[in-house]
Amino acid sequence: MYKYGILDSIHSPEDLKYLNTDELRQLSQDIRRFLLDNVSKTGGHLASNLGVVELTLALHYVFNSPFDKIIWDVGHQSYVHKILTGRKELFGTLRRYNGISGFPNPNESIHDIFKTGHSSTSISVALGIARARDLKNEKYNVIAVIGDGALTGGMAFEALNDTGQSKTNIMVILNDNQMSISQNVGAIAAYLSKLRSNPGYTKLKKEMDSVLRRIPRVGAYFADMVEKFKNSFKYLVISGMLFEQMGFTYIGPIDGHNISALIDVMNRATMIGGPVLIHVVTKKGKDYFFAEQNPELFHGVPPFNVETGEICEEGGETYSAVFGKHLVEMAERDSRIVAITAAMPDGTGLMEFKKRFPDRFFDVGIAEQHAVTMAAGMAASGFRPYVAIYSTFLQRAYDQILHDVCIQNLPVVLAVDRAGIVGEDGETHQGIFDINFLRHIPNITLLAPKNTEELKQMLDYSLTLEGPVAIRYPKGNVGVDSTFARAPMNSLKWEIIIEGTDCCIISFGRMLNTAVRTARMLSKEGLEACVVNARVLKPLDQSLLHDLSTRINRWITLEDNIIQGGFGSSITEFVMSCRLPVTVLNLGINDSFIPHGSVDRIIKELKLDPPSVAFAIKKFLCDFVKESYVSY
Amino acid sequence: MYKYGILDSIHSPEDLKYLNTDELRQLSQDIRRFLLDNVSKTGGHLASNLGVVELTLALHYVFNSPFDKIIWDVGHQSYVHKILTGRKELFGTLRRYNGISGFPNPNESIHDIFKTGHSSTSISVALGIARARDLKNEKYNVIAVIGDGALTGGMAFEALNDTGQSKTNIMVILNDNQMSISQNVGAIAAYLSKLRSNPGYTKLKKEMDSVLRRIPRVGAYFADMVEKFKNSFKYLVISGMLFEQMGFTYIGPIDGHNISALIDVMNRATMIGGPVLIHVVTKKGKDYFFAEQNPELFHGVPPFNVETGEICEEGGETYSAVFGKHLVEMAERDSRIVAITAAMPDGTGLMEFKKRFPDRFFDVGIAEQHAVTMAAGMAASGFRPYVAIYSTFLQRAYDQILHDVCIQNLPVVLAVDRAGIVGEDGETHQGIFDINFLRHIPNITLLAPKNTEELKQMLDYSLTLEGPVAIRYPKGNVGVDSTFARAPMNSLKWEIIIEGTDCCIISFGRMLNTAVRTARMLSKEGLEACVVNARVLKPLDQSLLHDLSTRINRWITLEDNIIQGGFGSSITEFVMSCRLPVTVLNLGINDSFIPHGSVDRIIKELKLDPPSVAFAIKKFLCDFVKESYVSY
Repeated sequence: MYKYGILDSIHSPEDLKYLNTDELRQLSQDIRRFLLDNVSKTGGHLASNLGVVELTLALHYVFNSPFDKIIWDVGHQSYVHKILTGRKELFGTLRRYNGISGFPNPNESIHDIFKTGHSSTSISVALGIARARDLKNEKYNVIAVIGDGALTGGMAFEALNDTGQSKTNIMVILNDNQMSISQNVGAIAAYLSKLRSNPGYTKLKKEMDSVLRRIPRVGAYFADMVEKFKNSFKYLVISGMLFEQMGFTYIGPIDGHNISALIDVMNRATMIGGPVLIHVVTKKGKDYFFAEQNPELFHGVPPFNVETGEICEEGGETYSAVFGKHLVEMAERDSRIVAITAAMPDGTGLMEFKKRFPDRFFDVGIAEQHAVTMAAGMAASGFRPYVAIYSTFLQRAYDQILHDVCIQNLPVVLAVDRAGIVGEDGETHQGIFDINFLRHIPNITLLAPKNTEELKQMLDYSLTLEGPVAIRYPKGNVGVDSTFARAPMNSLKWEIIIEGTDCCIISFGRMLNTAVRTARMLSKEGLEACVVNARVLKPLDQSLLHDLSTRINRWITLEDNIIQGGFGSSITEFVMSCRLPVTVLNLGINDSFIPHGSVDRIIKELKLDPPSVAFAIKKFLCDFVKESYVSY
Repeated sequence: MYKYGILDSIHSPEDLKYLNTDELRQLSQDIRRFLLDNVSKTGGHLASNLGVVELTLALHYVFNSPFDKIIWDVGHQSYVHKILTGRKELFGTLRRYNGISGFPNPNESIHDIFKTGHSSTSISVALGIARARDLKNEKYNVIAVIGDGALTGGMAFEALNDTGQSKTNIMVILNDNQMSISQNVGAIAAYLSKLRSNPGYTKLKKEMDSVLRRIPRVGAYFADMVEKFKNSFKYLVISGMLFEQMGFTYIGPIDGHNISALIDVMNRATMIGGPVLIHVVTKKGKDYFFAEQNPELFHGVPPFNVETGEICEEGGETYSAVFGKHLVEMAERDSRIVAITAAMPDGTGLMEFKKRFPDRFFDVGIAEQHAVTMAAGMAASGFRPYVAIYSTFLQRAYDQILHDVCIQNLPVVLAVDRAGIVGEDGETHQGIFDINFLRHIPNITLLAPKNTEELKQMLDYSLTLEGPVAIRYPKGNVGVDSTFARAPMNSLKWEIIIEGTDCCIISFGRMLNTAVRTARMLSKEGLEACVVNARVLKPLDQSLLHDLSTRINRWITLEDNIIQGGFGSSITEFVMSCRLPVTVLNLGINDSFIPHGSVDRIIKELKLDPPSVAFAIKKFLCDFVKESYVSY
């Protein structure tokens, strides 16, 4: 029953306040055991959470959540926060449908102030909250916890620039684990590394207690004390000049696993007026051998064996892996090819490319905007950049795709990974908007492969196109059996993969598999559905559509994407503009955000699984018959 | 004939190389006269171009364009560059349809390396070009010219971060005029101001010549010399630590109107390896009294009288002005209202709000991403933020609108100014994508007023809604006569403003005026068109549409926006999904970028003027009759 020591008696942040330092230290180890036991079963973000145990404890010890507001940037490192704020018992449901989310969620707890998920937003949110507080003349602390990786995102800088000049009280905790998800890159990373390697910091780790003992406590002469405090910290301040020049009081670096140091520093930082930045150094995967050794692998991890570190991998080669491998082969033949990632060399399958062609590989940090425009610059100079970004993160580069790539019709290829439902990461990570925000941009060619084989063909084909291309493909390895391939992908033509006369299912990518299975189900009931692989989402294969319209007048579009303005919408537009004698049923996601859960479960909830689709089609055909009956 | 002195003999950058310093100084004055004479007739960006005359001369004197690549951030300050690169004679056509663009355009000249228009992209582009150069083992200089305002944009920082750590040779010229378009804000602005106010700089302006004389010239011991050069510049380097810490060699500040200083500094900077940042201080509107006095007014200016500085204003109160004025009235009654702008307090009509409620007004710099998410933070704390951003710049905040505002259904109101065709600024500034990138986002309410009166009603109404709202309105003051108002805007209902039975034109915003005029033309030919004000673009007024479908089966949607995935597309989706017995014709912009020219001219070219629309409708109705004839 009492499995996790002190943690068993912690039900709210209030309970922490009665613990002494030794107990807090013990608690941090209890929490690590709890995390390992649970995440090894549910899967989830492990390494980052192991890294912030002491930091989270210190935050909840010093501050009074939810009176004080803690904003977690990115949010996948909020597990410890969730454990401490009453959601310990729910951890078995983590990331499951109807279970607790892997990200902060105000609907789940009053301690979750803001729903985060994408990187680099926390300082903006915190500044908004702080300004609201000031206008209402309220007094509480607002704390943004942001990783060093997230700091490379431009909007974090926009927020620092705005905050630094404001007089408002706001605390930014820089959780520096020398990583974003992968090794961190860029000038800021180098700068932070310089701060960390300062001999003062090493010395500090040993002498922290005595240093802290010399810092005056809250007393009568407040202003004077703050000054003394700042001076006594002078050698800690080392050279955080970059942040000081941005208008922040910089404190650090602090050992992020020394809980008493963290508590003292935070306590005293609240006495400093204006924007404060505390630089905390943590270790990703802390105290779990396998995660410390391989933090990238244990960043977002499926269930695994705690003893051996062995990960229960799904079988089959993923789209990302095939993309990476094939791009290497292409790059061997064509020296114009370069690969660009925004801090996701591993997730996007580009590690091999990085090793083989270090000069032609660019990891620009969590900086999707810059990634796309930098690619445009290279394309304008004769290169063929392949920019691999997850669908949901590509939203950040909408303007750059439109403005810097498409207006000039430059041959940049966007490899849109994790398109469609991604599952457990939920609302902030589903890749269900990319067709909608890309297809209305002039000049772009939009592709979606039915399986990994077709992905390779599309990559080859993209090299023959002289304008922008986006290839969207899902997480994992779901695809249509290759026996269904009828025509190689070497033009903008679609292919009919199952002939039929009663209706026509137009689909693409992962959903084509669903279309095939649905057609088989319908066939058993005597309905012969034609299945079309609409692998080119833009431009539409108009001649095939015209041809189809002469034979079949009931079309169903099927996509794991928002219907409004999506692919099905483009088919409807076409039918209407050509006034084809066809009725279209658009199946997909109807104008709503999609929560977390396994892909299969969500697909079922959305009624996009084969039985549901078959049912919808039968109903559609019935109504149609009824209507025809009525009208003629 | 020879009106502009030395300028008359300048036909390419090559011609500059033969001039001495005195002649270059004279030339800069000739260019200023040329600019005033021309821009006062055509309208255009004046103040920023007056500020970069010497800087541009120095760039083309020192570098060999197009062999060396000069990238102009934002691009509206490239007039002098255009004058020097063979387009002097075309200046009478500036920003006119088929005339030269007000922004760099590679289709116009080999000296225009990249099409810019939105802020903060130049360093990304330059880095892409520099990396391409390095991979090809070529040798040339790549120079990004970026304003201090553009530096507040996050993607400029993303690019600095990536560039600073690269070893590549790249030169960033920071054109610091203490303004973006308006007064610059934020910590970086304060930092630059500190650099400028350093006594070393003032002293420097006087002693520049003697300083420069002490700098060694190119000699045998290159490395040694660079070191000496850097040392001799030490007191110029003052404290550009922020940039140094980002991995740049910082030089500056330099007086941007001292042409010999600029030339010398640029010449020598090319000898420094790796990324270099030259901080140049210029004066916006330089040497034209009225523009120096009021650089905001003369930023983007209609034709004006050179002698008096009087601007030929169009009559009528603009939407922006009405927005700003009405928001002040609302804010007087409701203390939850705050206003946010991204460096456009003037353009968006918020100057009065800023004066009236300085504490509730936030100019965050050119930082649309941060603006939206900061607003979300304030909304989460009970405030009602109104974020005014031009349609085309709002593209930058697509992810933040979706992710930080709409997922949490927060009551942020986006005032989408300059929606639709804006005219003279061309491709990079047309607001023709906002419906497309907003309407597929769940939870958002999209509004578009038919005139400024309805804008006020919509602003009032938006305060009663509990989720995100976007109100799009055009530049200028075009609107429908108020006599056409049938129902006040206090619900999500549309209104029928002209009754008719032969067909129905569904339109909104500025285009509703076109719809009314078209209906009148059709009426003269015996066709009675119903005109619907679809002022709520999302959600659609479904009951009105159902009702309409029982009476009229020929619908025309009319929008000054991209058709694909746009408003008309949503009507088509609705008709198809409800299987209404209606045929829809979507009129709008068909999948293409729209060049510069007057709004009227472009509207005509797009066949969106009343006669063209009337013609299209008649053809549509004819075809319809023919088809009906065939099918029954």
